[in-house]
Amino acid sequence: MFRNKLRQIWAEGKPALNGWLSIGSPFTAEIMAAQGYDSVSIDIQHGALDYGSLLPMLQAMRASGVTPMARVPWREPGIIMKALDAGAQGIICPMINSAEEAAEFVSYMRYPPHGQRSFGPTRAAIAYGGYGVQANDEVLALAMIETAQGVANLDAISATPGLDGIYVGPADLTLGTQNGRLPPAFDREEPEMIDLIKQVVDACKRNEIRACLHCGTPAYAARAIGWGFDLTTVSGDSRLLAAAASASVREWRDLTGGDGVSGDSTKGVY
Amino acid sequence: MFRNKLRQIWAEGKPALNGWLSIGSPFTAEIMAAQGYDSVSIDIQHGALDYGSLLPMLQAMRASGVTPMARVPWREPGIIMKALDAGAQGIICPMINSAEEAAEFVSYMRYPPHGQRSFGPTRAAIAYGGYGVQANDEVLALAMIETAQGVANLDAISATPGLDGIYVGPADLTLGTQNGRLPPAFDREEPEMIDLIKQVVDACKRNEIRACLHCGTPAYAARAIGWGFDLTTVSGDSRLLAAAASASVREWRDLTGGDGVSGDSTKGVY
Amino acid sequence: MFRNKLRQIWAEGKPALNGWLSIGSPFTAEIMAAQGYDSVSIDIQHGALDYGSLLPMLQAMRASGVTPMARVPWREPGIIMKALDAGAQGIICPMINSAEEAAEFVSYMRYPPHGQRSFGPTRAAIAYGGYGVQANDEVLALAMIETAQGVANLDAISATPGLDGIYVGPADLTLGTQNGRLPPAFDREEPEMIDLIKQVVDACKRNEIRACLHCGTPAYAARAIGWGFDLTTVSGDSRLLAAAASASVREWRDLTGGDGVSGDSTKGVY
Amino acid sequence: MFRNKLRQIWAEGKPALNGWLSIGSPFTAEIMAAQGYDSVSIDIQHGALDYGSLLPMLQAMRASGVTPMARVPWREPGIIMKALDAGAQGIICPMINSAEEAAEFVSYMRYPPHGQRSFGPTRAAIAYGGYGVQANDEVLALAMIETAQGVANLDAISATPGLDGIYVGPADLTLGTQNGRLPPAFDREEPEMIDLIKQVVDACKRNEIRACLHCGTPAYAARAIGWGFDLTTVSGDSRLLAAAASASVREWRDLTGGDGVSGDSTKGVY
Amino acid sequence: MFRNKLRQIWAEGKPALNGWLSIGSPFTAEIMAAQGYDSVSIDIQHGALDYGSLLPMLQAMRASGVTPMARVPWREPGIIMKALDAGAQGIICPMINSAEEAAEFVSYMRYPPHGQRSFGPTRAAIAYGGYGVQANDEVLALAMIETAQGVANLDAISATPGLDGIYVGPADLTLGTQNGRLPPAFDREEPEMIDLIKQVVDACKRNEIRACLHCGTPAYAARAIGWGFDLTTVSGDSRLLAAAASASVREWRDLTGGDGVSGDSTKGVY
Amino acid sequence: MFRNKLRQIWAEGKPALNGWLSIGSPFTAEIMAAQGYDSVSIDIQHGALDYGSLLPMLQAMRASGVTPMARVPWREPGIIMKALDAGAQGIICPMINSAEEAAEFVSYMRYPPHGQRSFGPTRAAIAYGGYGVQANDEVLALAMIETAQGVANLDAISATPGLDGIYVGPADLTLGTQNGRLPPAFDREEPEMIDLIKQVVDACKRNEIRACLHCGTPAYAARAIGWGFDLTTVSGDSRLLAAAASASVREWRDLTGGDGVSGDSTKGVY
Repeated sequence: MFRNKLRQIWAEGKPALNGWLSIGSPFTAEIMAAQGYDSVSIDIQHGALDYGSLLPMLQAMRASGVTPMARVPWREPGIIMKALDAGAQGIICPMINSAEEAAEFVSYMRYPPHGQRSFGPTRAAIAYGGYGVQANDEVLALAMIETAQGVANLDAISATPGLDGIYVGPADLTLGTQNGRLPPAFDREEPEMIDLIKQVVDACKRNEIRACLHCGTPAYAARAIGWGFDLTTVSGDSRLLAAAASASVREWRDLTGGDGVSGDSTKGVY
Repeated sequence: MFRNKLRQIWAEGKPALNGWLSIGSPFTAEIMAAQGYDSVSIDIQHGALDYGSLLPMLQAMRASGVTPMARVPWREPGIIMKALDAGAQGIICPMINSAEEAAEFVSYMRYPPHGQRSFGPTRAAIAYGGYGVQANDEVLALAMIETAQGVANLDAISATPGLDGIYVGPADLTLGTQNGRLPPAFDREEPEMIDLIKQVVDACKRNEIRACLHCGTPAYAARAIGWGFDLTTVSGDSRLLAAAASASVREWRDLTGGDGVSGDSTKGVY
Repeated sequence: MFRNKLRQIWAEGKPALNGWLSIGSPFTAEIMAAQGYDSVSIDIQHGALDYGSLLPMLQAMRASGVTPMARVPWREPGIIMKALDAGAQGIICPMINSAEEAAEFVSYMRYPPHGQRSFGPTRAAIAYGGYGVQANDEVLALAMIETAQGVANLDAISATPGLDGIYVGPADLTLGTQNGRLPPAFDREEPEMIDLIKQVVDACKRNEIRACLHCGTPAYAARAIGWGFDLTTVSGDSRLLAAAASASVREWRDLTGGDGVSGDSTKGVY
Repeated sequence: MFRNKLRQIWAEGKPALNGWLSIGSPFTAEIMAAQGYDSVSIDIQHGALDYGSLLPMLQAMRASGVTPMARVPWREPGIIMKALDAGAQGIICPMINSAEEAAEFVSYMRYPPHGQRSFGPTRAAIAYGGYGVQANDEVLALAMIETAQGVANLDAISATPGLDGIYVGPADLTLGTQNGRLPPAFDREEPEMIDLIKQVVDACKRNEIRACLHCGTPAYAARAIGWGFDLTTVSGDSRLLAAAASASVREWRDLTGGDGVSGDSTKGVY
Repeated sequence: MFRNKLRQIWAEGKPALNGWLSIGSPFTAEIMAAQGYDSVSIDIQHGALDYGSLLPMLQAMRASGVTPMARVPWREPGIIMKALDAGAQGIICPMINSAEEAAEFVSYMRYPPHGQRSFGPTRAAIAYGGYGVQANDEVLALAMIETAQGVANLDAISATPGLDGIYVGPADLTLGTQNGRLPPAFDREEPEMIDLIKQVVDACKRNEIRACLHCGTPAYAARAIGWGFDLTTVSGDSRLLAAAASASVREWRDLTGGDGVSGDSTKGVY
Repeated sequence: MFRNKLRQIWAEGKPALNGWLSIGSPFTAEIMAAQGYDSVSIDIQHGALDYGSLLPMLQAMRASGVTPMARVPWREPGIIMKALDAGAQGIICPMINSAEEAAEFVSYMRYPPHGQRSFGPTRAAIAYGGYGVQANDEVLALAMIETAQGVANLDAISATPGLDGIYVGPADLTLGTQNGRLPPAFDREEPEMIDLIKQVVDACKRNEIRACLHCGTPAYAARAIGWGFDLTTVSGDSRLLAAAASASVREWRDLTGGDGVSGDSTKGVY
């Protein structure tokens, strides 16, 4: 029977740890899925990949048992439904600014009569036994709130029937609400941003949906869990790789007294 | 004019740091090439990739200025020449057991009258101005010694005209010489293995070629530089990624008091 | 001169048999195109493929002479026009609920002044001589009616100038009109569904366009031809493969007395 | 520091030459980027390629220093933002018919508070140092005017804040404004079309944005530069290849007295 | 702990059913792996695929639990070791004509001191816990005997230390031994061919290795099991698909009275 | 019935024109196959492609009716047989230096009893009706002579039973015979090279096989036809594209008085 492990973890009152894939390789997907994450999300929006990579990446992660999810580029039915048919068990949808947009998003996620998803789970039905019957109850619809308008409609959005949670991307939330005053980044420390982030948790709790946060470090993620978040993402494949390689280079240069300049592109990696 | 940067570094008496690519993605190649390595080698032998990935990976690294190299699966002229035509500026060839095999390998690397490489540097000539004229002088031929027979022929191999260096893979060198007594791994600490590794350096020095070592950590690599190695590889993309992700998961689990078992597949990643 | 063979078959008063591709492989496309279908459609909506697979699949089928078509994920101009430029000679568009949507769909299929298709048939002009001049007259615009609203607007949709036919997907038509009362599947036997399906044929006849039906078996398809359908699809590559392999496994298990449990995932394959 | 070379060329008062890629191959991209163009644009709209090809093509052109741009299939935020994140330094957007549509297009190109682009320049930040800070000022937003409505709104569109230029595709402009009277093609000689094309230049000059024209030959392009255009595209990879091969075949047939019929598909190649 | 399921089945005294993949698609691989086969082999020799397809196909089958194997194009160490590193748990090697060739093949399959396999199980170590330690004992080396010379050396080949079995391809065995007298095909009925096939079983039994046969139908395979074969392959993905589609077309043509000629390319599909 | 068109052209006493593909794209293959060549060869040796590209390129050219051939990287049975199974109707094999090597090459091209090709024409049997029966008689085995040793054995090589022709690559022939005295290039004018090239024609005539020459221009090719060559290749896709683009850029720069430096990488393109 097809069950979404994230729902089970939450049902047990535990927080979940989400991995993040920006590299369009089934091998990195398989590597990441082996590291102990509860779920792993493939970023079709900002990741260096599209549907052509999504499919083999989902296949490569199936054996691991992690819950595979996908962030889509936009609130467009084509890619949302294709990602679901390919086996994504949750969709993170960017730029939800109103209850209407949230309802439209949710409608793409559910088969009639609960929505307007078109039927044809070509790979999902191969990968998950009983998918057709269970899909409406199991797949997760997570909306991103990233603009002033979205924040203004936070409660209405959170109350959307069928919505499973709010996913916060601090970089866009900062850009979208602070009018250029603050640069985009994760792990905000500004009181106004922390306050805003906590408002999301509160709205989620009131509406009995899940609060999810994109973080840069385990330490910040742990604080967020303390604020009530149900799921945190901590960094992602391209950042982890760049940071680890850069640190290795720097250490070698230091130890060998070389005058080579080690790269440090990690600041620039989303 | 096409020049191999590794030759220039060595001409200045400096050691070089080599990166390692086992993931068949041009995006990971571009990320890795931005971290400050002197050269980056694509592993067609044990890496999860073949020629189809090699080509776009070489293209993706061109702008970085690192010296791109490739390890081939075997002493086969087809793939050696294809990797060169695609733009690899050095070839690491496994399992060279005799001077004859070393000479055969070198012959595949040079155009007549110095070898039997076939002419047609389709991409290399686009990427590197003056490639046709300079190639014989610039591309690097690095032989791996990995068996008892290879060790026995170390001096003869090192004296092969046209050979540019010996590349040591400690895992295979251990397997190939210790008769199952020691498990395969990098960063050997056994006196007999360190002795063997130092013999390679000595043979290289005597024959005025370069000594290269595959290492697991910057600390061990720095020791190897101290022993006289001219180039060290330190870990590689798949290991760096797995280790970084695994550490991140472990830290999150510790901080959130979760009872989830973090993965630790890094031991298994070559 | 570029001619659409489906139009010729229909002009001769004959029904047509359509093949269906959900596997994103040019080799399966070439195999399927060799089996005697009149047309073969590539399912970009629910198939495990996207534009990156569509292009080589269209190339692989060109020599066969079948009419290649594509079902698009949604009523989006980007993918509709790209599929046409790549050489699809017909587009099946899902979820057409009103005459306005039908007209919008048709507008994407025709060059001005008959529509708003952008000019640039990059591959189509290579593959089909005289494409630019003939395209408006030859490519087929087939609308799917899959919701209660679509059924309510059946006549208005069918009367849309430039629309060439209605394509019925029984699974979605059932989901979209029966309010969860009936499960999604092909080859409906419920009187109310058969009645609905026949209404589509009637509306098509009245408006002199073509009626097309997605079927599971030749037997049902033959009945549908008897009802007046002009084209039927019968199963598709992934279902045919799964069913054939599963039957082969089952027969082997029976004959060898093995206690292995043969898989039977065909029920789940769309 | 990330700078767009096209802006620098224009700042020096010079016209620019743009190359065009319709073939989805990183190797053709690398070849074309080596021929001396100022910028090279990847045609995701009519080219035989999609995002899956775009990414390695952008990587393959990085070392050349040309300004890479992309034409998107439609005014859709998903693909516009993905092309930017992948490293396109300019976007050519088809079918802009009104100032509202132009403003919407521009909004997808700029981070808040100047637009609604979502933050996450995954590859761009690797490839271009300082991308996050500079992107809003450097990436180019070029709108295509291709319909009678677009022409009617030429001035309003040209005055859109943040729009950097108008890009004219003569084939679609002809189809879209002449009501079927003239066939689609480049290098128009009809007085009414030349007049229309010059109106675009005038509107651009008045609004201090750039005028760009898609041409078939260097001779016509040079005339267009004389009319005030700031950038011209001259042919593209698929046309150049087909024309060169076809001419080679014809010459061989003539010289060898062969009765083979040489192909001449170049007329059909966009 | 990494265990080869085929070894376990055989240890229980049961025969095994092997599936066969000639289509280079991870989706067909995932479909086939869901149908109940004990093992599924990817044909790199005659299949329409190479290493680039092998890797994602192995990933796509991992969750199914079938034993994945690969047939390599030739007795070449490069591809044999790459297939193993990618996760193939058995290698079927064509054209083994002598004990020397068999020993050479086996040597590529085992790490020293039992062979000369190079260490670096990049993906295998991710996919299978404990791979490094267990690989020598678990991966299967299956030699094909296909020529008169091979038949003459049947006993010597079968006695090769470390060889796990003989795999018979009746088409090549017929071509290679009957001097053009019989056409290539599976499921031989000629007494001399059946006799030859039974000799293989006998040699395997004498040497306590496994006998494997490529068959066309379950019925013939069941007979072969009766003769003592330990594993049979029954048809493969491309043949199963072509046969199923062709039969569907033929039935539709018959039922609709159409005069279309249904394809029947199945005879030609290997 | 499967027939090789090149054999028919030659049977009629006509020379043939061969196209050349170094770009690994099915779209460039389809474009080139539409230009009027008699045959088109895919260069797996020096082309920027491997088997993964070969297959869809062969599919994309099937409708054109040109005879598709492939040059393999080396005299290796794996890739020779894979290229044939994929549908190549001729194989050009580099570096044949003796009659023994020629015989070995031919043996890989023919099914027993005439050779040792393994049976399994997976795609060829789909694409060409009757392939299995006709293949031995129709596929072409063309050997390259490129070294002093090869020239010394010219007659013996040409007399190899089953060999269909000699293919001369002037760049390698020059490198391989002139001891570094002359640079590699096509269209040799040195008397000693012309003499050598004519010797090949003579040897072919004596042994009633075909003489083939790789040329740079139609003019030189026409001269070669006059010398008795049966087939000439004239340039190839990457050179044609680079030359055409470079000429276009140069013309634009001249006409617009720009001071930009047009690229001219054509000299470097093989």
